[in-house]
Amino acid sequence: MVSPSFESLRQAAARVQDLADAMSVLSWDQETYMPPGAIAARAAQLGTLSGMHHRMLAEELMPLAQQLLAQVDSLPAQVQLNVRQLHRQLTKTLKLPEALVTAMATATAEAQHAWEQARAANDFAQFAPHLQRILDLKHEEAECYGYQSERYDALLDSYEPGMTATQLDGTFANLQDQLVPLIQELAQRPQVDDSFLYQPIAQDRQWAYGLGLLEQLGWDTRHGRQDISAHPFSIGIHPSDVRITTLVKETDLMAMVYSTLHEFGHALYERGLDAEHRGLPQGEACSLSIHESQSRIWENNVGRSLPYVQHQYGAIAALYPDGLRGRTALDVFRALNKVAPTPVRIYADEVTYHLHVILRYRLERQLLDGTLAVADLPQAWNDTLHELLGIWPANDAEGVLQDVHWSIGALGYFPTYSLGSLYAAQFWAQACQDLPTLEAQLAAGQFADFRGWLHRHIHSQGRLYDSEALCQRITGQGLQVSYFMDYIRAKMAVVYA
Amino acid sequence: MVSPSFESLRQAAARVQDLADAMSVLSWDQETYMPPGAIAARAAQLGTLSGMHHRMLAEELMPLAQQLLAQVDSLPAQVQLNVRQLHRQLTKTLKLPEALVTAMATATAEAQHAWEQARAANDFAQFAPHLQRILDLKHEEAECYGYQSERYDALLDSYEPGMTATQLDGTFANLQDQLVPLIQELAQRPQVDDSFLYQPIAQDRQWAYGLGLLEQLGWDTRHGRQDISAHPFSIGIHPSDVRITTLVKETDLMAMVYSTLHEFGHALYERGLDAEHRGLPQGEACSLSIHESQSRIWENNVGRSLPYVQHQYGAIAALYPDGLRGRTALDVFRALNKVAPTPVRIYADEVTYHLHVILRYRLERQLLDGTLAVADLPQAWNDTLHELLGIWPANDAEGVLQDVHWSIGALGYFPTYSLGSLYAAQFWAQACQDLPTLEAQLAAGQFADFRGWLHRHIHSQGRLYDSEALCQRITGQGLQVSYFMDYIRAKMAVVYA
Repeated sequence: MVSPSFESLRQAAARVQDLADAMSVLSWDQETYMPPGAIAARAAQLGTLSGMHHRMLAEELMPLAQQLLAQVDSLPAQVQLNVRQLHRQLTKTLKLPEALVTAMATATAEAQHAWEQARAANDFAQFAPHLQRILDLKHEEAECYGYQSERYDALLDSYEPGMTATQLDGTFANLQDQLVPLIQELAQRPQVDDSFLYQPIAQDRQWAYGLGLLEQLGWDTRHGRQDISAHPFSIGIHPSDVRITTLVKETDLMAMVYSTLHEFGHALYERGLDAEHRGLPQGEACSLSIHESQSRIWENNVGRSLPYVQHQYGAIAALYPDGLRGRTALDVFRALNKVAPTPVRIYADEVTYHLHVILRYRLERQLLDGTLAVADLPQAWNDTLHELLGIWPANDAEGVLQDVHWSIGALGYFPTYSLGSLYAAQFWAQACQDLPTLEAQLAAGQFADFRGWLHRHIHSQGRLYDSEALCQRITGQGLQVSYFMDYIRAKMAVVYA
Repeated sequence: MVSPSFESLRQAAARVQDLADAMSVLSWDQETYMPPGAIAARAAQLGTLSGMHHRMLAEELMPLAQQLLAQVDSLPAQVQLNVRQLHRQLTKTLKLPEALVTAMATATAEAQHAWEQARAANDFAQFAPHLQRILDLKHEEAECYGYQSERYDALLDSYEPGMTATQLDGTFANLQDQLVPLIQELAQRPQVDDSFLYQPIAQDRQWAYGLGLLEQLGWDTRHGRQDISAHPFSIGIHPSDVRITTLVKETDLMAMVYSTLHEFGHALYERGLDAEHRGLPQGEACSLSIHESQSRIWENNVGRSLPYVQHQYGAIAALYPDGLRGRTALDVFRALNKVAPTPVRIYADEVTYHLHVILRYRLERQLLDGTLAVADLPQAWNDTLHELLGIWPANDAEGVLQDVHWSIGALGYFPTYSLGSLYAAQFWAQACQDLPTLEAQLAAGQFADFRGWLHRHIHSQGRLYDSEALCQRITGQGLQVSYFMDYIRAKMAVVYA
C-alpha cells in the first residue's frame, strides 16, 4: 500500500479543524450575543458537532496518522514530530466514546448557563445538580483515559500533558512554603494605599481606553475584536479570527485594564499559531500552562512593571476625575502590586493568587476521588480559603460559585494557572537577557521586539514539544520555581520599600 | 427488515439540522461581528460544514426516508406528508455532488465579501469574477437538477417548488400590464409630499424606537435579537433563536422602520416553526414566496395601513425635530405610500417594486441561458431599468451592485418577492374576513389575534403543502393577482384622493 503524504494529513486536519472552528464560533456567540432562551438549542448543536468532530478524528485523521507513523523514521524531522505528537493526542482523545463527548458538550453548555444564573442568584443549589452531572461524566472520562495512581491525573494530563498530581504536590508545596511566610511578612509592613484607584469612571471612557491599550500593544482589528461578557475570556476561532471579551465596572478601571492585558496575551498566542498547520501539533498551542504564561507575561511581567506603568501613567491620570492629584507613577505601581488576601481569585494579587489555585486543586482531587460530596463543597471551600488565606467569602457567589471552570467541565485545569505564572517568570528572565533594552522599550511603549521574541520562541513552535521541553529549549532548563520567587521578591522590595 | 420508526427519522433530522443551525450562526456572525480579515477562514469553515451537511442528508436521512416511503401508505396522514415531501426534497438536493455544494459555499462566502467591497467602491469589476464563478457553479447546479425547457427553471424550483418561468411569464405580464398604466396614471395626479419625513433624527433615538416597535408587535427578546448589518436580513438559527438586522440612516427614519417590520415578519415565521420537527417538512418554512408573504404582510398590509400609521402617529411625531407640525396621520400615510420610481429596489414603493423584480428576472434568465455576458450586465441593467421605470441609476452601486443576492448564489430567488406580495394581499383579504375587527385592533396597537391567525394558518403548517396548496387551504383558491391589484387600487384611491 502506498503511504499517504503528509500533505493529505495536513488537508484532513484542516477540514477537521473547520468543524472545531465552528464550535468556537458557537461558544463565543453563546457567551456574547445569543438570546438567553436559545440555550437548549445551542447545547444540542454543540453536542452534535462535538460528536461529529470526534468521529472525524477517529475515521479521517487517525487512519492517516497511523499510516504515517508506520514509516515515520523516513520522514523529515518536523514531520516526524507532528506525526508522533498527533498520534499520541489522538490515541488519548479516542479513548472516549462519541456518546460521552456529545453528552459532555450538551451538559456543559447547559451547566454554564445554570452557573451564570446560580451565581447571579447566589444560590449554589441551582448549580449543584449540573456539577454532579459533570462530575459523573468526568469520572467516566477519567476511567476511559486510565491513570496510574489517581483519577485526577487523567484529567490533568489533558491540559498539561505528562504532568501528575505527585509532581504538582512538590511544586505547590515549594510555592506554599515560600509564599505563606512572605504574605505574613508583608502584612507586618506599612500598608500600601490603593484606594485612589477605585473611583467612578464612565464605562464608555473605560471601554475606549481599553481599546486604545490593545492598539498600542499591536492588536490588529482586522483579525480580532473585543466584546463584553459575564466572564472575560479569549478565543481563537482561527489564527485570522481571535476574540477577547472584558467586563467594565464603573469603580474598577484596573480590573478592566488587567483583564484586557491578560486576554490580549492569550489572543496574541492564538493569532501567532501556524495557520498552514491548523489541527496539527505544529499549528496548536503547546499546553494550557504555556498558554497561561502568555497571558500572565503581558498582564503581570509587562503590565504590572514599573516601566509599563510609567508609560501609561499620563493616560491613566487623565481618566481619573481628580487626575490622581499628587500620586506618582511609582504610587500607581505600588497600588497595582499591593498584596492583600481577597476571596475572589481573579482579583487576587500575584502573591496570594497561587493559594487560590491550591485551594481548587485540593477540592477537585477530593471531588474526584469521592472523599468530598457536591453538597459539602461550599463549606469545604470556605474552610480551605480560611486555612490558606485567613479570610471568609461573604457568600457563595464570591466563594464556590465564582469560577466558570467547573461548569464547562474544566477539572484539572486550575494548576495550569500557577504553572503559567512560573513559566512566565522564567521566560521573562530569558527575554530580558535576550533583549537587553526590553525594559526601556516598555517604558517607551514599544512592544514589537517582545512580540517578535514570543512569536519566535513560543507561538511559532506550536505543540511540537511539551511544556517542559519547550522551556528547556528556550531557557536551557526545565521549570524552576525560583524564577518566580526571585521576580516577586524583587518587585515586593520596591512595592513595600 | 424492520422498518425504522418515524421517531428515528425525526431524531436524525434534528441532528442534521443541528449542523444547519451551526452554519446559520456562522453566516450571522459573518454579517455582523466577524473581523473582516477572517473571511477566507470563514469561507473554508462554511465549505466544510456544507459538504458534511450534504453527506449527512445522503447517508443518514435519505436511507431512513426511503425505508419509510416504502411503507408510507400504512402511516398516519401527517407522517405520510412529511415522508413524501422529505423524500422529494432530498431527491432533488442529492442530485448535487458534495464537491459542488462545498465549492458553492466557499465561493459565495468569498463573493459576498467581494460584493460588499465592490459596492462600497462603486466598482463592478471587483465583483465580476466572483459573479462569473457563481454563474459557472449555478450552470453546473442546474444541469445536475435537470429541467424541462430552460436552465432557470431548475434554480427557481429550489426556492419555489413546482414553479416555472412559463407560469411566471403569465403572472408577471398580468402584473406589468396593470402596473405600468397605473404608475403612469398616478404620475398625472397632484403629487404627494413626503419631504417632511426625511429629517435628521439621531441614530440612537431611531434605534430605541425600532426596538420599541418590535416589542409592541410581540417580539420576544429571550428568543431574538436585533443588530446592525450592511444589508438588513433575518435568520432563524432555531425557532428559539431568531435574529434580525437593520440599517440606521440619520435622515431616513422610515427606511429603518419598514425594514424592521419586514424582517420582523420573516422572524416571526421562523419563531413559529415547529421545533419538534426541525429538519423535517413539518418544521420548515413552506417556500420563499410564503416566507416573503410574512414579511410583506407586516411591512405593507399592516405597517403601511392607515390604522397602523394612526396608531404610531404620536410616537413618530415626537421623534421629528419639528413634531411634524401640521402634518396629520393621513399625511404620513400618504407620504409612506407615495408612488415614485427609484433605482433602488429596497426603497421602492409597493407599486413600482414589481418592475424591479421583473428586471432581475429577465437578466437572470439571460445570464443563465448564455445570451448575456457578465461584462455586459451593468449596461443591460441600466437599459432595462430605463425601459421599465423610465429612470437611470446614478452609478453601479445603486444599479447592478445594489443587491446581495447574486453574491450568495441566490439566482431564481427574486420572483419570490413579487409572489410574496401577491400572497400577502390574498392572505390579508382572508384575515380581514376571518377577523372582522382586525383594522380596529391595528389602530389600537393590538396584534395578538393577527399573530395567532398567521401561526394557525401558515407558521404551524410548515412545508407539508406547497405554496399553491397552502393558499388553497387558507383562501379557498390558488394565487390570484387580483387581490393585490384590488388592495393597491383601494390604497391609491386614498393616497392620491
